Amino acid sequence: MAWKRPARREFLKGSAALASGLTVGALAPDAAAQGPAPAASPGSAATPMLKDTSELIKYGDRSKYVTSVRIPHGGRPTPDTFGLTFHVATPLQDSVGVVTPSSLHYYATTRGSFLPDIDPRQHTLMIHGLVDRPLTFTMDDLKRLPSVTRLHFIECAGNRSSPRAKNVQESHGMTSCAEWTGVLLSTLLKECGLKGSAKWFVAEGAEEVKGASSMPIAKAMDDCLVAYGMNGEAVRPQNGFPLRLMVPGFEGIFHTKWVRRIKVVDQYHINYNDFGHLDQDAKEAALGYQIGPKSVITFPSGSQRLPGRGFYEISGLAWSGGGAIRKVEVSTDAGKTWKVAEFKGTPQRMAHTRFGLGWNWDGKETVIMSRCTDELGSVQPSRVQIAEHFHKPADPSFSIPGLDNSIMPWHIASDGSVTNGLTA
Amino acid sequence: MAWKRPARREFLKGSAALASGLTVGALAPDAAAQGPAPAASPGSAATPMLKDTSELIKYGDRSKYVTSVRIPHGGRPTPDTFGLTFHVATPLQDSVGVVTPSSLHYYATTRGSFLPDIDPRQHTLMIHGLVDRPLTFTMDDLKRLPSVTRLHFIECAGNRSSPRAKNVQESHGMTSCAEWTGVLLSTLLKECGLKGSAKWFVAEGAEEVKGASSMPIAKAMDDCLVAYGMNGEAVRPQNGFPLRLMVPGFEGIFHTKWVRRIKVVDQYHINYNDFGHLDQDAKEAALGYQIGPKSVITFPSGSQRLPGRGFYEISGLAWSGGGAIRKVEVSTDAGKTWKVAEFKGTPQRMAHTRFGLGWNWDGKETVIMSRCTDELGSVQPSRVQIAEHFHKPADPSFSIPGLDNSIMPWHIASDGSVTNGLTA
Repeated sequence: MAWKRPARREFLKGSAALASGLTVGALAPDAAAQGPAPAASPGSAATPMLKDTSELIKYGDRSKYVTSVRIPHGGRPTPDTFGLTFHVATPLQDSVGVVTPSSLHYYATTRGSFLPDIDPRQHTLMIHGLVDRPLTFTMDDLKRLPSVTRLHFIECAGNRSSPRAKNVQESHGMTSCAEWTGVLLSTLLKECGLKGSAKWFVAEGAEEVKGASSMPIAKAMDDCLVAYGMNGEAVRPQNGFPLRLMVPGFEGIFHTKWVRRIKVVDQYHINYNDFGHLDQDAKEAALGYQIGPKSVITFPSGSQRLPGRGFYEISGLAWSGGGAIRKVEVSTDAGKTWKVAEFKGTPQRMAHTRFGLGWNWDGKETVIMSRCTDELGSVQPSRVQIAEHFHKPADPSFSIPGLDNSIMPWHIASDGSVTNGLTA
Repeated sequence: MAWKRPARREFLKGSAALASGLTVGALAPDAAAQGPAPAASPGSAATPMLKDTSELIKYGDRSKYVTSVRIPHGGRPTPDTFGLTFHVATPLQDSVGVVTPSSLHYYATTRGSFLPDIDPRQHTLMIHGLVDRPLTFTMDDLKRLPSVTRLHFIECAGNRSSPRAKNVQESHGMTSCAEWTGVLLSTLLKECGLKGSAKWFVAEGAEEVKGASSMPIAKAMDDCLVAYGMNGEAVRPQNGFPLRLMVPGFEGIFHTKWVRRIKVVDQYHINYNDFGHLDQDAKEAALGYQIGPKSVITFPSGSQRLPGRGFYEISGLAWSGGGAIRKVEVSTDAGKTWKVAEFKGTPQRMAHTRFGLGWNWDGKETVIMSRCTDELGSVQPSRVQIAEHFHKPADPSFSIPGLDNSIMPWHIASDGSVTNGLTA
C-alpha cells in the first residue's frame, strides 16, 4: 500500500461534490431511518427499462450511456482512405483495470477500410524453412495442442508523446492489453524440428504489404505464441482472426495478424515492410524490438477536468518489453518529489499494470507525471534525459528518434482543467 | 508442469488430421523451399475481405464465423416470458482462458425481458442504517476513491450437474468470471463510520422483487466491492450497469445488480426474496453463502466430438468461494487414477482458474472428470460422497440438496462423441 490512508471521511472532505450538498453528505433523518422499501429509495420513483432482446440475450452490448470509442490516431489518414495504412487508438482516458475490451483494442493495418474475412475452417499455418519436417496446422490441430493463457500488451512503435496530443488517447492510445490464449511457437517448432542453422524467423499474415520482418529464433523459442483466443473468445477480425502471432514486448508490427506462414531462416532480412523505422542492419534493428519501460497517467489526463480540490486517486498504466513492472512512481509537483504508487494486482510480464496513488489536490496549478521501473531495473526516462543522450536541446519540438518511452506530464490548471504538459 | 511432455512430434502423431494428409503433414519439397512470397502461400489466392465500417472502427465486433451464444438455462422460462425470473447461461464449451467476455457473461434476473436502463448521472448509492453518518455517493464520487481491480467469478446457486444436461453450458453455464474494478465496500463503510451494533448488511438494487438478502458485516469489511468496471469498461446493463455489488465467493444472488442502497443492521433478516433456498435462520442460511470448491472439464465436454485417437489437451475451469484453487486433478479412467493438471496462470482468489492436462486418447470408451482442492484444503466431492453424507443412494436421480459442487463426469464413446457421464 503505497498511498497513505487518510483518516475516515477524509477522502471526500472538501470536495465540490460534498460542498454542493447534492451528493455525498448527510441524509435527512427521515430518509436515513427508513427501511429498504423500494418506493423510499432515492431517485428510484420510476426506473426506466431496457428491452432485453433475443439478440442481446445471446450476445450482449454495452449501455447506450457508455460512448467511449476508438479514434484514428493523430496524423494518420482517416479510416475512410482505402488502401492506406491507418491506426485506430484505444480510449485510455476511460480505461479501468488492465484488460482492454476487445471492441476497443487498438489496431493498425495497411488494409484501409478492408480487413481479411477469414473462414477459420479454411485457415492454416504453415511452418517451413530450416526445419526437419515442414508442417501445416489447421485451427483444429492447434486447439488440440498444449495451450497457454497470458496477459500481454501490444504497442505500436508510433505511440509517442507529442506536444500536439490533446489527450492520452492521442498520445498513448496505440497500446492495449488483452488475455491471449494459444500455443507457444516453441511447441510448434519442436514438432517441426529446428535445424542447427536456424537463427531467425519470418512471419507472414494475410496482409500482403506488411510484416514479414525478421525476428530472432531465440525469441520464438522463448515466449512467442500463436493466439486463437483473446479475452475469453476468438481473436477479433481487427486483431487477426482466426490466428495472430504474439511476440511479447516487441513493437506491434511484429505481432503478425491473420498469420498463415512462418519461415525459419539463417540470416536477417526484411521484406514487404512499408515502415522506415526498421533497418537492414540486424544489430541496429534489434534495438527497436523491445519497448518500454513506459507508463502514463490515464486519470486525470488531457481534456479531463477535476471538479474541485480534494481527494482523487491518480490512476494509470505501466508496461515494459523487458518483463514485469517492479515500481511506479508518481509526482504531483512537476517532478520535484516522487511517491511510490500502489499496484492494482500482481504485475504480469509484458502486460499493462494498473497503478494508483491517492492525492489530495489543493486546487493550485501543478503538473503530474509517472515513471516506472521494470524487472531489469530499467527506469523510464524523461524527455530531457533522452535529449541529453542525443546531445539535443530539450525543447518541446525535440523529436525523439526511434521508440519513445518518455515520461508524459499532464498540466492541471487552477480551474481543474487538464492539458498536455509538454506544451504548458 | 503436470503433464509429461511427449517427445518431439508426438503430440499429433496418429491423429486423424495427420492421417488425412490434408492438414498436418509434410509439404511438397517445392512449396517448402519457396520464400514467403504471398502468392505462393497455401490457400491465400484470394483472401475474402471484410468492410471495416465506421461503427466497427469505433467499437468492434466478433467475426461472423464465431457464433457462440448464451442460452436460457435449462428448465427456466424462456427469455420472452415477461415478468418471470430467467437465467441465461455462458457457453463454457467454447471458453478459453479465464475471462468470460462481457457479452457472454451469464446473468439471472427477475425482470423477464426488461432490464433497468439507468442514466449513470442520475444514479446514487445510499449507505445508511447503523452508521455514524449516512452518505449518498454519485458515480463520480465513487470514481474518485481508491479503487481495486480483481478477477472474480460469480455463480448462481442453481448451477447444478444434472443427468439431463446435454452439455457444459446447461450443466455449469451459470458461472462466469470477469475483471471487476470498483471501490471496496469497506472504504465506503469507513467513510460512513460503522456503529458498534452493526452486524449484518442488506443490499438493494433496482430490481424490486429480488435481493435484499442479509450478509455478514465481516464480509463487507473484508473483500466486498461496489464495481463500476467490468473487463476494462463499464459494467454491462445485464450485469448491473452502472453499479454492482460484488460479494466474492458468495452465491450469485448476493451480487446485487444496479445497487442503489446498502443498509447496515443489527440482525439477520431477509425480504423480497423469491427463492426457496435461503432460510430465515441465519445459521443455516450462512452455510449457503460460500460456494465450491468446484471444477468442470470444458473440453472435451458434452455434445463435442473427438475426431480420432491421439493427443488432446483436456481443458477446464476450477473455482472456489473459499479462496484460490491449489490443485486440480484429472482422471481419464472414470476416477480410478488421477493426474495433477497444469494451471494456465496463477490462481486468483475467488476466480476461475484455467487448467489443462495433456492426454493421448487410445480411441477406447472412457469417462473423464476433474476435481479441485482450494486453499482451505477443501476437496471437490463426488456425487457418491455427497449421497453418502446425506445417507441417500447414489443413483442418477439423487438430487443434491443445497449448493451442488459435485464432480462432473463426461463419457467418451469409441466414436469420439462426448455425453453427460451421469447418465452413461
